[in-house]
Amino acid sequence: MKVYTSTIQVRTRGETDIIDITQRVKEKVTPIHVTNGSLLLFIPGSTAALTTIEAESGVMNDLRKAIERIVPRNIPYEHDKRWEDGNGYAHVRAALIGPSLNIPILDKQMILGTWQQIVLLDFDNRPRSREIVIQIMGE
Amino acid sequence: MKVYTSTIQVRTRGETDIIDITQRVKEKVTPIHVTNGSLLLFIPGSTAALTTIEAESGVMNDLRKAIERIVPRNIPYEHDKRWEDGNGYAHVRAALIGPSLNIPILDKQMILGTWQQIVLLDFDNRPRSREIVIQIMGE
Amino acid sequence: MKVYTSTIQVRTRGETDIIDITQRVKEKVTPIHVTNGSLLLFIPGSTAALTTIEAESGVMNDLRKAIERIVPRNIPYEHDKRWEDGNGYAHVRAALIGPSLNIPILDKQMILGTWQQIVLLDFDNRPRSREIVIQIMGE
Repeated sequence: MKVYTSTIQVRTRGETDIIDITQRVKEKVTPIHVTNGSLLLFIPGSTAALTTIEAESGVMNDLRKAIERIVPRNIPYEHDKRWEDGNGYAHVRAALIGPSLNIPILDKQMILGTWQQIVLLDFDNRPRSREIVIQIMGE
Repeated sequence: MKVYTSTIQVRTRGETDIIDITQRVKEKVTPIHVTNGSLLLFIPGSTAALTTIEAESGVMNDLRKAIERIVPRNIPYEHDKRWEDGNGYAHVRAALIGPSLNIPILDKQMILGTWQQIVLLDFDNRPRSREIVIQIMGE
Repeated sequence: MKVYTSTIQVRTRGETDIIDITQRVKEKVTPIHVTNGSLLLFIPGSTAALTTIEAESGVMNDLRKAIERIVPRNIPYEHDKRWEDGNGYAHVRAALIGPSLNIPILDKQMILGTWQQIVLLDFDNRPRSREIVIQIMGE
């Protein structure tokens, strides 16, 4: 059993920017000699989240609109009154989606559906430089 | 430390079909000689998700209705305009709930609440045959 | 590779009580000699969930209000008609957020963002005594 930890850096535009990181995650998994195990992805920070979706621009726009309907930007947030950050909606969105994601590795390959990609969602109200933690555990 | 990977096949009716898979997951955990560890469940595919809920038909209907309110089927989706799949809502729903779930194993037993069951949610607009990946890691 | 399982007890007031458990989780991680690995947090039960958020009372109120808008308390739930528990909304909320959370451990420290705390959300309609399972796996 082994544990490997790595990170990938992603520059985002904020405002529910949805970024396909599947290829970059694969590049971290491939050279690691783990036959069977799993991958933990974690985004440190309270205004971003991780999930999977078909990384097709139509459905990514659909997700963006759904999130805007569910947690609208232009309603009052106590966070903004208190801290004047203007990103209260981003914190709420991130808490609902969640910061962690786990993917199994079988025969040295991540198991993903054919149309399923790993995406970072950056909800903050400005461009950010994000660091995603990748941890591979297995044998 | 050991890793065991298995799968279970589930036939669904689609349309936010909610299927209790707890017993079938238990049948995979029991013969594995892991005293302490954890279980990763993962659904490959971009129109299904995993979570826990009391598998009682009333509350499963309540969850179904809540999801229909949050991500309605009958509004326009860019995904549908582009690909004519008609399942844009299913992709958005799946991305919001998420494809992975982790459950601890203690003394050879999965730790779940008394009224807490593991469910597959299939949001697609047609019946599907799904394969859920089950990975047990521990000692 | 080692596995350590522990629990922390939390008394809640219910009604979407949001409780910062970061410090208590750290106290479980610190004495464990795991250099690299990960932490699984799991809440047994079907009316509570785990996520991360900035544990600042303004934004925690914002999250509470968002959840009330998304899954309102005062609409009819089939669960309540059938079981008269009055907490159908709590079950639906918990299923949407999810019971598990994973955090990487690097150089004996949990990796969290500066403003990112681990919170328990108790959606039930009465005070509860909750037990959160903490499992540390690593080397």
